[in-house]
Amino acid sequence: MMVVMTPEATPEQIEAVVRKLEARGVHAKVMPGELTTAIGAIGDPEGVRELGLEGLAGVDQVIPISRPYKLASSELSHHAQSVFEVDGRRVGAADTFCLIAGPCTVESPEQTRVVARVVAEAGASMLRGGAFKPRTSPFSFQGLGYDALEILTEVRAETGLPVVSELTSAQHADRFAESVDVVQVGARNMQNYGLLEVVGKLGKPVLLKRGLSSTLDELLMAADYVLKEGNERVILCERGIRTFETAMRFTLDLGAVPWLKLHTHLPVIVDPSHASGDRRLVGPLARAAAAAGADGIIVEVAEDPEAALCDGPQQLYAKDFPAFAADVAAHARLLSKELA
Amino acid sequence: MMVVMTPEATPEQIEAVVRKLEARGVHAKVMPGELTTAIGAIGDPEGVRELGLEGLAGVDQVIPISRPYKLASSELSHHAQSVFEVDGRRVGAADTFCLIAGPCTVESPEQTRVVARVVAEAGASMLRGGAFKPRTSPFSFQGLGYDALEILTEVRAETGLPVVSELTSAQHADRFAESVDVVQVGARNMQNYGLLEVVGKLGKPVLLKRGLSSTLDELLMAADYVLKEGNERVILCERGIRTFETAMRFTLDLGAVPWLKLHTHLPVIVDPSHASGDRRLVGPLARAAAAAGADGIIVEVAEDPEAALCDGPQQLYAKDFPAFAADVAAHARLLSKELA
Amino acid sequence: MMVVMTPEATPEQIEAVVRKLEARGVHAKVMPGELTTAIGAIGDPEGVRELGLEGLAGVDQVIPISRPYKLASSELSHHAQSVFEVDGRRVGAADTFCLIAGPCTVESPEQTRVVARVVAEAGASMLRGGAFKPRTSPFSFQGLGYDALEILTEVRAETGLPVVSELTSAQHADRFAESVDVVQVGARNMQNYGLLEVVGKLGKPVLLKRGLSSTLDELLMAADYVLKEGNERVILCERGIRTFETAMRFTLDLGAVPWLKLHTHLPVIVDPSHASGDRRLVGPLARAAAAAGADGIIVEVAEDPEAALCDGPQQLYAKDFPAFAADVAAHARLLSKELA
Amino acid sequence: MMVVMTPEATPEQIEAVVRKLEARGVHAKVMPGELTTAIGAIGDPEGVRELGLEGLAGVDQVIPISRPYKLASSELSHHAQSVFEVDGRRVGAADTFCLIAGPCTVESPEQTRVVARVVAEAGASMLRGGAFKPRTSPFSFQGLGYDALEILTEVRAETGLPVVSELTSAQHADRFAESVDVVQVGARNMQNYGLLEVVGKLGKPVLLKRGLSSTLDELLMAADYVLKEGNERVILCERGIRTFETAMRFTLDLGAVPWLKLHTHLPVIVDPSHASGDRRLVGPLARAAAAAGADGIIVEVAEDPEAALCDGPQQLYAKDFPAFAADVAAHARLLSKELA
Repeated sequence: MMVVMTPEATPEQIEAVVRKLEARGVHAKVMPGELTTAIGAIGDPEGVRELGLEGLAGVDQVIPISRPYKLASSELSHHAQSVFEVDGRRVGAADTFCLIAGPCTVESPEQTRVVARVVAEAGASMLRGGAFKPRTSPFSFQGLGYDALEILTEVRAETGLPVVSELTSAQHADRFAESVDVVQVGARNMQNYGLLEVVGKLGKPVLLKRGLSSTLDELLMAADYVLKEGNERVILCERGIRTFETAMRFTLDLGAVPWLKLHTHLPVIVDPSHASGDRRLVGPLARAAAAAGADGIIVEVAEDPEAALCDGPQQLYAKDFPAFAADVAAHARLLSKELA
Repeated sequence: MMVVMTPEATPEQIEAVVRKLEARGVHAKVMPGELTTAIGAIGDPEGVRELGLEGLAGVDQVIPISRPYKLASSELSHHAQSVFEVDGRRVGAADTFCLIAGPCTVESPEQTRVVARVVAEAGASMLRGGAFKPRTSPFSFQGLGYDALEILTEVRAETGLPVVSELTSAQHADRFAESVDVVQVGARNMQNYGLLEVVGKLGKPVLLKRGLSSTLDELLMAADYVLKEGNERVILCERGIRTFETAMRFTLDLGAVPWLKLHTHLPVIVDPSHASGDRRLVGPLARAAAAAGADGIIVEVAEDPEAALCDGPQQLYAKDFPAFAADVAAHARLLSKELA
Repeated sequence: MMVVMTPEATPEQIEAVVRKLEARGVHAKVMPGELTTAIGAIGDPEGVRELGLEGLAGVDQVIPISRPYKLASSELSHHAQSVFEVDGRRVGAADTFCLIAGPCTVESPEQTRVVARVVAEAGASMLRGGAFKPRTSPFSFQGLGYDALEILTEVRAETGLPVVSELTSAQHADRFAESVDVVQVGARNMQNYGLLEVVGKLGKPVLLKRGLSSTLDELLMAADYVLKEGNERVILCERGIRTFETAMRFTLDLGAVPWLKLHTHLPVIVDPSHASGDRRLVGPLARAAAAAGADGIIVEVAEDPEAALCDGPQQLYAKDFPAFAADVAAHARLLSKELA
Repeated sequence: MMVVMTPEATPEQIEAVVRKLEARGVHAKVMPGELTTAIGAIGDPEGVRELGLEGLAGVDQVIPISRPYKLASSELSHHAQSVFEVDGRRVGAADTFCLIAGPCTVESPEQTRVVARVVAEAGASMLRGGAFKPRTSPFSFQGLGYDALEILTEVRAETGLPVVSELTSAQHADRFAESVDVVQVGARNMQNYGLLEVVGKLGKPVLLKRGLSSTLDELLMAADYVLKEGNERVILCERGIRTFETAMRFTLDLGAVPWLKLHTHLPVIVDPSHASGDRRLVGPLARAAAAAGADGIIVEVAEDPEAALCDGPQQLYAKDFPAFAADVAAHARLLSKELA
């Protein structure tokens, strides 16, 4: 932390800040300048932040000079990337790209099976499918629930694809632990800290989506909640942020991909379907995600997306998926990555 | 809904949209224009939204023409405002203003008692105090938990002030129902739909904070989740939204107050403490909230805010609270409102 | 500036930063910490910013610790507020409130005269009226131009109200200097630096509107462009910023008012008409601006706003203006301010 | 336009809207629904927008159903892309990719020449270089001005590279017309309508950067200002928008690339240097831009970026440029595009 005093700050006010820092066991260095004095506080940023120094007389600004996340930091891992396997698929490795695809929502065994076969044949790494759907309006379709988990289990047995599905409530956690291979935490729950601790303890890989107005620092602090429970298999997912632009559903922040690769050891994937809300944009953005260095993508596919019960306009047509997958794979290959 | 076709749309494509709407039981009106054709879909907006018409060939845009929230709509109540009592304090009435004040976090019986007495004497309507604190970093202080609820219960007995505290997890719901008078749902949980349904069933008044990147439509849809469980005592709270401006912690959206008064029958209060994160701004913004027509405010107060364990810089000093309260009350009085 | 090195930074890299700073004549203090080393650079922030230290090997972050604006800073004026007169009306004084009102656009002598008389009688301090209108689409009505300036001059003679109008191009500057009392720089031109320098030289008071995505720091730097030409009569205007919320046209940032009063000596007014785009919200937001401590407001009024050629829905009805003005004045009076 | 009435609207209020539309020569269709009545207004959207119908009694919403831009619309060109040449380089063609590179600011003949040679050899299509720099603070370095134009002219003669430079003021327009091949309009001037009309008349290709808080609709309306002067050679440039995320300087909106390709016939390029402000992100984002289907990129390069007078941290090192260019070209080639 750097505490910057106002130009009018008195020596007593400066001394009061120093005393407060030292009472917390933090070393304080006073740096007098021409206009203002700054005080450097080295060590224990958490503790210093909680001192509320901004409220002290004579204090102008308190500026953090250390990153607020810890366990997710690439410095902790000495810049080695985390690599782990999900049922034989390597995630986070320099030479693999993870293609996760499937229906928005599991609606029936037939619908799920048809899509799963198409994506498996086209080389997908995992199958996605919604069981419990968080919906903005309480009057919308909310998903098949546990029945969907059973359908996913069947289809996994048939296709060999590991399964990703979103957990929306701690009370479903045990059933998810039995049925799915990767537990997704959705954007609206990225700061649902109770849920993060629950998935931290489940012992399953976690796909953690960035909140729609969460900074990257906050995403990594949310990952810290999972990591501190001892679960080190966390996949981060950029899925678009909320901005003033409404031409697309969200603004996909692809700069987040190389930024995260610099600052965290965790794998990073991209969801172009929810970001754009428009299937015509999913192909270009999926290719761009691969080109930006993502470790994978997660996309929605439907046999007849126009008949789907939710999120129709963003789902790729199953008939177009093989060409889409080949296209994305070609871009990943330029970065020496093969489909996992 | 209004479905706007592209200029190139064929009669067959227009017909396909009409058929899809009518299969859903929705009446469709075709309106040919000079450049494009539009199709009006009257009735059942939820169902139409789920048809995913944006994905159909020849469709350019699907434009909602009805509000997405229902139970929270002022049209439902024929523009009568909801008014209810919390332990004798009227909330939402044209002639009352609700002043909720107290420490950010309950840290000890003494600290809570001192602040509670100060705010009670200055005319506060209710006491706020955090028991479980949702913290961005898992390494920050998280609150005293159930011990805090007991402290609040004691202090309520001593001062007569009804108590507001934030519920962060469904598993604490029963204890909250026993201990607090108003259950707060925090900004980060505004779209935690499971939690909303739980508080909907608790039978206690709910203070629902706007998510930091939630639109007002989404706030009202979140209120719908509570209302549909039969709980009609919901207080909405504007507490600042996340924007590009970082001079203050959040951007307080005071336009939301008169907008909400036009569109919903629910009471609307404002939290200037969390919005600004700076006690020097809390007074001006609290007065402005009263002038904008809010039904109340919720602010943080501490005897010695510089010693508080969290959120220090935004807490008012207890010694300044009587003047602050008198100032806000004077502004409320210009709109014919007295402290509840 | 504070330069924070990465944990892996070598002594040579630290030395390179120090050398670069000292070559610029800036004093550098090295502060070794447990994890990282920080280097404080005291003096000449402009010069340090231009060194591009973020690009040096081993540098993690460069954090500004001084405010980027100079002449607009309240520290420069030792916290004395700037007060000046516009044709007898005091702007920026602790005991005056400036009510600027008038039509969006000057459309005819009759229309302007009728509105001017209504607002003058209700106690307005100045008359506003658009001559050249910056329009997003080139196919929209662009204003009457110089004819409008002549109409404003006539109406000023009749009513005695000083006149505010927006300058959109340097080539009109001389005519504006003759015809108007306050030259407005619109939100879209807040960073049109050439125009700022021109108005800085005109010798007329300037009303500088905040850009719709400009930070408060940037607003004060824009004011610096005017001030450095020797023109010290600058009025700042908060008029709503662009955020994700689309329920209103812009999000009025009323927290900006007390923030600016802390950080600059310049007067601060608020434009609730353009911010909200909805006349039903103008009253509540005008009152709130007064309560937040603004030095004034600027609002649009029309005799028959439904017939106005642009921006109809946000204009107050002339018949409602006297009650509106009395209401705002009552709120200003609570802060000991009378209409100027 | 679609005018949606409130549920309480009377038949007289509905009739008043219809009359107002018909007085404007617009055909109105009344569509009674279960809850509300909607009125479709077909034809002349500009005129209808200016009627200010939102202000009429009984009107709930006015919803645009036609695009607000005209000349830039891909419908106008029947979905044929605009293709034109800049000194032999084809811009906008399906099989070409335009690589524009050069120093942020022209600082000396030597500096410019060295960079120009490196980028020319690596296959760049054009040379960029700033002559007049719009700077947020008036105390920052503002560029060499006309001297820079002369340097660019010399270097063009030596390398054969056409030159792109930013015009910041109409008074420099004639000199720019003589000296540069593409006139850039910067983000801060995207809504400087006077300047847009001037460049529209210059007869030179224009590179129009998206404003940092401009919607894509507004970008296309700004292009309309240039196009309506008869200048059809406009290149659009996505350069990052301002959002709540401050980890990078701006948020690069790559979804804008495929969205613009759907909605306009104009070429679309991307500026990853200004968007990210960090050279470590420029490579990944440049590749991503190519993969998303952009017609080109514009990047900053310096021989010794650490010595550059402005924007140092975002400039690529000249020694790394050949590998960078090859990498981007490989991605463009996957979409069948070769460097122009």
